[in-house]
Amino acid sequence: MDQDLLAALDIGGTKIAGALVDDGGRLLLRTRRPTPAREPGDGVMRAVAGVLRELRAAARWPRVAALGIGSAGPVDARRGTVSPVNIPGWRDYPLVDGVRAVVGEMPVTLVGDGVAITAAEHWQGAARGRDNALCMVVSTGVGGGLVLDGRLHPGPTGNAGHIGHISVDLDGDPCPCGARGCVEGLASGPNIARRALANGWRPGPDGDASARGVAAAARAGDPVAVASFERAARALAAGIAATAALAEIEIAVIGGGVAQAGEVLFAPLRRALGEYATLSYVRGLEVVPAGTGTGAGLVGAAAACRQALGRPV
Amino acid sequence: MDQDLLAALDIGGTKIAGALVDDGGRLLLRTRRPTPAREPGDGVMRAVAGVLRELRAAARWPRVAALGIGSAGPVDARRGTVSPVNIPGWRDYPLVDGVRAVVGEMPVTLVGDGVAITAAEHWQGAARGRDNALCMVVSTGVGGGLVLDGRLHPGPTGNAGHIGHISVDLDGDPCPCGARGCVEGLASGPNIARRALANGWRPGPDGDASARGVAAAARAGDPVAVASFERAARALAAGIAATAALAEIEIAVIGGGVAQAGEVLFAPLRRALGEYATLSYVRGLEVVPAGTGTGAGLVGAAAACRQALGRPV
Repeated sequence: MDQDLLAALDIGGTKIAGALVDDGGRLLLRTRRPTPAREPGDGVMRAVAGVLRELRAAARWPRVAALGIGSAGPVDARRGTVSPVNIPGWRDYPLVDGVRAVVGEMPVTLVGDGVAITAAEHWQGAARGRDNALCMVVSTGVGGGLVLDGRLHPGPTGNAGHIGHISVDLDGDPCPCGARGCVEGLASGPNIARRALANGWRPGPDGDASARGVAAAARAGDPVAVASFERAARALAAGIAATAALAEIEIAVIGGGVAQAGEVLFAPLRRALGEYATLSYVRGLEVVPAGTGTGAGLVGAAAACRQALGRPV
Repeated sequence: MDQDLLAALDIGGTKIAGALVDDGGRLLLRTRRPTPAREPGDGVMRAVAGVLRELRAAARWPRVAALGIGSAGPVDARRGTVSPVNIPGWRDYPLVDGVRAVVGEMPVTLVGDGVAITAAEHWQGAARGRDNALCMVVSTGVGGGLVLDGRLHPGPTGNAGHIGHISVDLDGDPCPCGARGCVEGLASGPNIARRALANGWRPGPDGDASARGVAAAARAGDPVAVASFERAARALAAGIAATAALAEIEIAVIGGGVAQAGEVLFAPLRRALGEYATLSYVRGLEVVPAGTGTGAGLVGAAAACRQALGRPV
């Protein structure tokens, strides 16, 4: 039988999703369950195993050539372990061993969730055909991944491109990661909302005090809401410009809930990029919204293991 | 006849150096002349041509397989042009065409000087055997280059790894590059000296008001001198940690005049790295002094063209 399918796992702090994916990147069978993020590690693993058993029960399972895992990070692809910040029971947890115990012997590729999203954008989204790209998710956190020389670049441990925790403000506020002035601390959704509230913005009649509420107020011209998005845009611009100077990317792709604010984010971001991306070889840098939607984590996990198998992505 | 030699050019704002280099990285024949940096572009090119003609006159010239150029940047390897900040007469100057006009048809590889130093450190210096490294020069300016997956990573235009102009202080002082709070503006030799002088440090009896003088004062315990090096170290740490988070490097190699300050720089740098390099996969990052000395630019230019020829570096 042709081994023309891939299995994919997308593991986050909220849900664990699984799918069978065909060679064109279509999700053939999907399943998901909530992440029991407060349970001890083995309890979380049981939820993963449940998702995998559903996939394994499918008639098409024998056609699966390999399995890709995109997980909340940090991950350690060399050792097959994960330590997601938002799943406290998993610290250096042997996820790949646990997965193999369910699926048996097959190639398994583990990458961080930012790397998985990047693989999806490169395969099917806004980074398609681009040889050097940064793809980001700006949401509850800020993550990312890199395409270099036409290939996904997970790095030795599967975490490369993690732009959320680079410091763009070396004397700035402490970050839960231990450093100061990280991009995530300035640009994540919760931080956009926190800053707006601290500066006097109040939610509208719908009571939405999240970044989505701030975005609505910014679109309506509220200056505090506008300023909070401009500050986030500036931090993102400094981080993207740094990545461009270091890795020579030609395009930055931004997805995630905060990116859905649209021009409220992208307009000041493009302006700020003009201020930080000044070197001749980064001046042409494009910034665009992500092209993949829900399911991108699964498509990307499949794409990452596809590259590991040596198939074109 | 065996084509077992390489030719190398190292072009900076002060001097233009040339050499023939053997397969073991030894400099067989060296020549140099001052850079007429204030002359129009063609005058600078005549100096380069003079160096090349000296090399071409050598009996061993027919054994040269290829030529590597490391140039002050930015460079554009795709177009074969250079626009060195410190050579105003060269803006998008067609250096590779000018070189070919002297040496005739042979493979020519152009990279930025930070990339060349990185190639030298990876071939013969402190990054030897390392698969993922950042190599830096901290001197009048701050430059760098990357080794990724065991290979020199020049990027499409030959400038990748340019850590001097990433912003680690997004609200910081304007930089001549147009951005704000760049690593170079906080950590270069002239900026270390400027900051010490502004804070009340005065040169000793030898009158040395450069970073070397500040380093001597710091070794003798002068608190203003110590603080200026600590500030530089902090900026370097934030930049190195950002590079590690983005590119998953395992080692940072630092050369150049400021690095010769030794522990006055490296001790606070290692401390600050502990504060900024906090993610699990970057915590083991090493920082070491460069292993190559004068001539590294030439060795590195040869190494870069060696990689382009497909020979192991």
